[in-house]
Amino acid sequence: MPHIKNPTRTHSSEIARIAAERQPPPRILGDGRARVAIESVTPTVPGGPFAVKRIVGETVRVEADIFADGHDMISAVVRHRQVDAGNWAEVRMTPLVNDRWSAEFSVLTEGSHEFVVQAWIDHFATWRRDMVRRAEVSQDLSTEFLIGAALIDHAIADSPGDHTDLRRFADRLKRRSDDDRIEVALDDRLAALMAQADPRRFATQSATPTRIWVDRERARFSTWYELFPRSTGADESMHGTLRDVIGRLDAIANMGVDVLYFPPIHPIGTKFRKGKNNALKAGPNDVGSPWAIGGPEGGHDAIHPELGTVEDFEALVSAAHARGIEIALDFALQCSPDHPYVKQHPEWFKHRPDGSIQYAENPPKKYQDIYPFEFECDDWRSLWDELLRVVLLWVDRGVRIFRVDNPHTKPFALWEWLIAEVKSRDSGVLFLAEAFTRPKVMNRLAKLGFTQSYTYFAWRNGPWDLREYFTELTTTSAVDYFRPNAWPNTPDILTDYLQHGGRSAFIVRAALASTLCASWGLYGPAFELMERTPAKPGSEEYLDSEKYQIRAWDLDRPDSLAPLIRTLNLARRENPALQQDRTLKFHHCGNPAVVAYSKTAGDNIIVVVANTDPHNMQWSDVHLDLPALGIAENAPYQMHDLLTGVRYRWTGRTNVVGLDPATLPVHVFRVRLHQ
Amino acid sequence: MPHIKNPTRTHSSEIARIAAERQPPPRILGDGRARVAIESVTPTVPGGPFAVKRIVGETVRVEADIFADGHDMISAVVRHRQVDAGNWAEVRMTPLVNDRWSAEFSVLTEGSHEFVVQAWIDHFATWRRDMVRRAEVSQDLSTEFLIGAALIDHAIADSPGDHTDLRRFADRLKRRSDDDRIEVALDDRLAALMAQADPRRFATQSATPTRIWVDRERARFSTWYELFPRSTGADESMHGTLRDVIGRLDAIANMGVDVLYFPPIHPIGTKFRKGKNNALKAGPNDVGSPWAIGGPEGGHDAIHPELGTVEDFEALVSAAHARGIEIALDFALQCSPDHPYVKQHPEWFKHRPDGSIQYAENPPKKYQDIYPFEFECDDWRSLWDELLRVVLLWVDRGVRIFRVDNPHTKPFALWEWLIAEVKSRDSGVLFLAEAFTRPKVMNRLAKLGFTQSYTYFAWRNGPWDLREYFTELTTTSAVDYFRPNAWPNTPDILTDYLQHGGRSAFIVRAALASTLCASWGLYGPAFELMERTPAKPGSEEYLDSEKYQIRAWDLDRPDSLAPLIRTLNLARRENPALQQDRTLKFHHCGNPAVVAYSKTAGDNIIVVVANTDPHNMQWSDVHLDLPALGIAENAPYQMHDLLTGVRYRWTGRTNVVGLDPATLPVHVFRVRLHQ
Repeated sequence: MPHIKNPTRTHSSEIARIAAERQPPPRILGDGRARVAIESVTPTVPGGPFAVKRIVGETVRVEADIFADGHDMISAVVRHRQVDAGNWAEVRMTPLVNDRWSAEFSVLTEGSHEFVVQAWIDHFATWRRDMVRRAEVSQDLSTEFLIGAALIDHAIADSPGDHTDLRRFADRLKRRSDDDRIEVALDDRLAALMAQADPRRFATQSATPTRIWVDRERARFSTWYELFPRSTGADESMHGTLRDVIGRLDAIANMGVDVLYFPPIHPIGTKFRKGKNNALKAGPNDVGSPWAIGGPEGGHDAIHPELGTVEDFEALVSAAHARGIEIALDFALQCSPDHPYVKQHPEWFKHRPDGSIQYAENPPKKYQDIYPFEFECDDWRSLWDELLRVVLLWVDRGVRIFRVDNPHTKPFALWEWLIAEVKSRDSGVLFLAEAFTRPKVMNRLAKLGFTQSYTYFAWRNGPWDLREYFTELTTTSAVDYFRPNAWPNTPDILTDYLQHGGRSAFIVRAALASTLCASWGLYGPAFELMERTPAKPGSEEYLDSEKYQIRAWDLDRPDSLAPLIRTLNLARRENPALQQDRTLKFHHCGNPAVVAYSKTAGDNIIVVVANTDPHNMQWSDVHLDLPALGIAENAPYQMHDLLTGVRYRWTGRTNVVGLDPATLPVHVFRVRLHQ
Repeated sequence: MPHIKNPTRTHSSEIARIAAERQPPPRILGDGRARVAIESVTPTVPGGPFAVKRIVGETVRVEADIFADGHDMISAVVRHRQVDAGNWAEVRMTPLVNDRWSAEFSVLTEGSHEFVVQAWIDHFATWRRDMVRRAEVSQDLSTEFLIGAALIDHAIADSPGDHTDLRRFADRLKRRSDDDRIEVALDDRLAALMAQADPRRFATQSATPTRIWVDRERARFSTWYELFPRSTGADESMHGTLRDVIGRLDAIANMGVDVLYFPPIHPIGTKFRKGKNNALKAGPNDVGSPWAIGGPEGGHDAIHPELGTVEDFEALVSAAHARGIEIALDFALQCSPDHPYVKQHPEWFKHRPDGSIQYAENPPKKYQDIYPFEFECDDWRSLWDELLRVVLLWVDRGVRIFRVDNPHTKPFALWEWLIAEVKSRDSGVLFLAEAFTRPKVMNRLAKLGFTQSYTYFAWRNGPWDLREYFTELTTTSAVDYFRPNAWPNTPDILTDYLQHGGRSAFIVRAALASTLCASWGLYGPAFELMERTPAKPGSEEYLDSEKYQIRAWDLDRPDSLAPLIRTLNLARRENPALQQDRTLKFHHCGNPAVVAYSKTAGDNIIVVVANTDPHNMQWSDVHLDLPALGIAENAPYQMHDLLTGVRYRWTGRTNVVGLDPATLPVHVFRVRLHQ
């Protein structure tokens, strides 16, 4: 009975306190004079006390329903700070409509920030509003002036500082001989001074601060390239090395890549090693899958000897860095039967009644080359600590981006803890979740701390699918926690669309990924060389997949898409609109095979129009929502195609495009209003 | 400086802890092996830890997003109980789609209930699922049987009770000679026993229970009638009495009323008393407004001497009760200058610098006959205690329903506390919020505990307005906390529609109110006698309003709508569909002046079609959503008009009605499928 090791005696006694849905504490009767209610504070991440995500320099627009009994005036502020590192700063909220209030502030430093909303009855503002109304009719206001003076006197008594000016106002309001008292009462300077000195009695505050995690810019805007380092040798008989990768860096940088990601670079197990094309038995020269991590040479902290040494790795990191490229590593929590952990820490694995260790399964399929960790083991804390040690070791070696393999098959609590631990040491470390699973699971991983997430992009090929999916990602609360990273292919995903769509399919998918998402990536050189033969019909696996064998690629092929990828990435670098996802907006096309969307950043406007039919020329009218783009209804505007350099003149909402798969099936327009 | 009496010295130091938006506490690292996440539990009341509302016998359908890492099976339960009065009961949740789970239970007793969601990895169910898959191929399952046996052994060890049967299953799984072990493994009885004995290790639970307030049936289904008791004398010179009201009870009961509500019945002040038609000066015989509460004869705990005595009141309560009618009193938190509190508790009022007490104002207007309480006073707790004492005194005198006057001008915290205090003593006491104000304020009052709420019904006269408003009330989360009570008129509200629409307007408004809302009310006899002259053009005030003078009504007028009201209320009593609001559904009418909607309860189906144009005959096609009503597409069905008794034969989705304001501009159909 291996996997329930420490049974409790009492039925349902072990209700763990990591409750997923943490509801607020029960009401405690406080001061009954706190009259302001605060509800529906946004931004917020549904489902828990999770942090909203932002990038250094970005704005946080806070909104809340704020209201009180009666008709008194309310004042409200947002208070915000970097957690444990500074005083609260404050910004006044202003009412919008229907009791909704808002305020904005910017987050200027990396790391954990927080904000609260505070609101109170503003008695002076109420008095001032009423004085305006009273002044409109003839009334004896003597007593009202004294009430105002008393409000000032109490503010002076309640708040520190020099109140000379306030005192002067109060004195004038008390002076019965003064004919100008109504002007004094309504003096803007008095209102401003009182806003400062308001004692804020009986204020209400959102009880727990909303957290904001602030990342460096690459969390939002990144261009990934996945490469098997062992496939960088001269031919398929040569095991490529980290030094070989250094030789490829210029070409990779030239494509506009800024994150170079490697599948696991650790020693590979030999027991039950898979052969070429996932054969059950490996031949004597088969190199095995990099995800079968661990051998006599070491585990997750070691480098496969045929790839090189730690010094080689550090040299590669430096060389990449010199070209504006960061190295991202895979973090795959599984072991080959030869991993050192298996002997050193058998308690981290599940044991079968026959004494063997439980291999991975998807019954009836068995994956005997892989041992998963048993995260329900008694020693889970030591396992977690070791995993943290491994990540921090690679951080020490210069890695600040991790692509996490199948995080949805490991406990949520592990990731929430591990990511927080790593970021508490280096707030600039980023994590990409490779979870292709159900929506709520993917969202949960993003909520609990993953910086970026793989998406369903690879399988969203038609205009309707693209519109539905990316509208959801960019206009719901997901935009505050789920940062999509769009990949047209991966070593596991060669879609039907790419298999059968020819060159046009690859072009369209690269253009869509790189313009729909501020972060995108591709698995190369398979992508730019349009590798598209599946392992078997109906499979999304590559034939002769690099997962199981070394490949040599002819990077100089004249049909390579590398120049297109470079052009797309240059457009991304030069256009802030493409460096974020919040302004994505779809526009109507009459032809259902054609998709059109825009992104804007200030006056930088990008419009993309793509033909998703890889086989046929398609014409479509494109109906742009001109007001949303800030374009006048009747003035002509220039559509500058960043892929070809051609400039078109458009007028009005509706224009027509023709897109031919045989040439270039997509426009990436920069809209130029002042020609 | 009267209204800031106890200023604090420190700027913003008094952040009251009645925080309106109470966010969950920060995450605490618990057992990292709790792998199940629980999110988005419903029902819930947004904006705080407020109770969901139900009626005794009703169902609570709980839903939640429940999911874990990996591919293991999950089990989940809803646990519920009456707070402080019983053990937790439990019901299994079942998965719906997209990681959403649900379960239902009924609440069988009045008072405070609560529920939590609990979920865990079900290792036995996972093992069983995998065994099914394994059995489909030929594999050696010996070790798998032993794993299953070990799961059983541990369940036996972990949970109390007699496990003879389980032990027998485990023994058979361990017996290598047994060829039938796969049948044993998949035996349904074993699965059932293991579901019982599951140790639920590392279960996750929603951290704080969701509260449910369970009311008696009248909270959901009630028929109100508002009456000025002083207008029940023989003529306008006679001050009616509580004994006179007893003489009216048969007629009121005959209209189908079950809640008879009186404006304040307390002594009325004389200082600044208003005259007829709200004249600033009262004449010597003017009776004043009942809302100017308090005089030398007493305050909120006393009865106006001209109405009668406490004994008279108790006799009235008994006589009403004998006819199925409850007496509801007004609870209006304000005082006339003659109220005993003014002298006994000056600390509960705001004092002006000239020594006078602050009267009510809406600057520049002054209401010098009314002193509001100063709820920000230092002695707020003694004020609250006194208000609770007053309510409980009337509860002792047999009043279990209160209509609260303008609750939105008194602190939210007062109501939340006061209603909870009263209900902790008598769970059957009901409160109707008379708040005609902004939506979020009205919602907040409902959330914090008011049983029913007045609505915007009076001003929703067209089909589009009705559809939008009542769809919002019955299909959003409002349905779990906001119980609408629809009034076509009140002593303050004589709408333009009623002023100008003639008899047809009154008929339509009564029919809509009584069928759209399970709770409705009217202010009579003004309503049934179609009183419709405003105090002045453009005003919603009645001319010769009973608020300021005694009226005598000719109840025997042949054109009285009393028979129609009786018919409507009989239809409500006989048709469960009209006794709740959750199944309200609007149906499309081709004519924009005509509205159609249905309510269903099991096979009880009501369809209402009304012409909202009070001046012209209107014909319209009515398109019923037949599947929603459970009506076959092609079979004819009978539409039995409960107002006229006429039975129509309809077929299919689209039928035509003609509704004439000159006769009867509304159908209230009972749909009869088996004719």
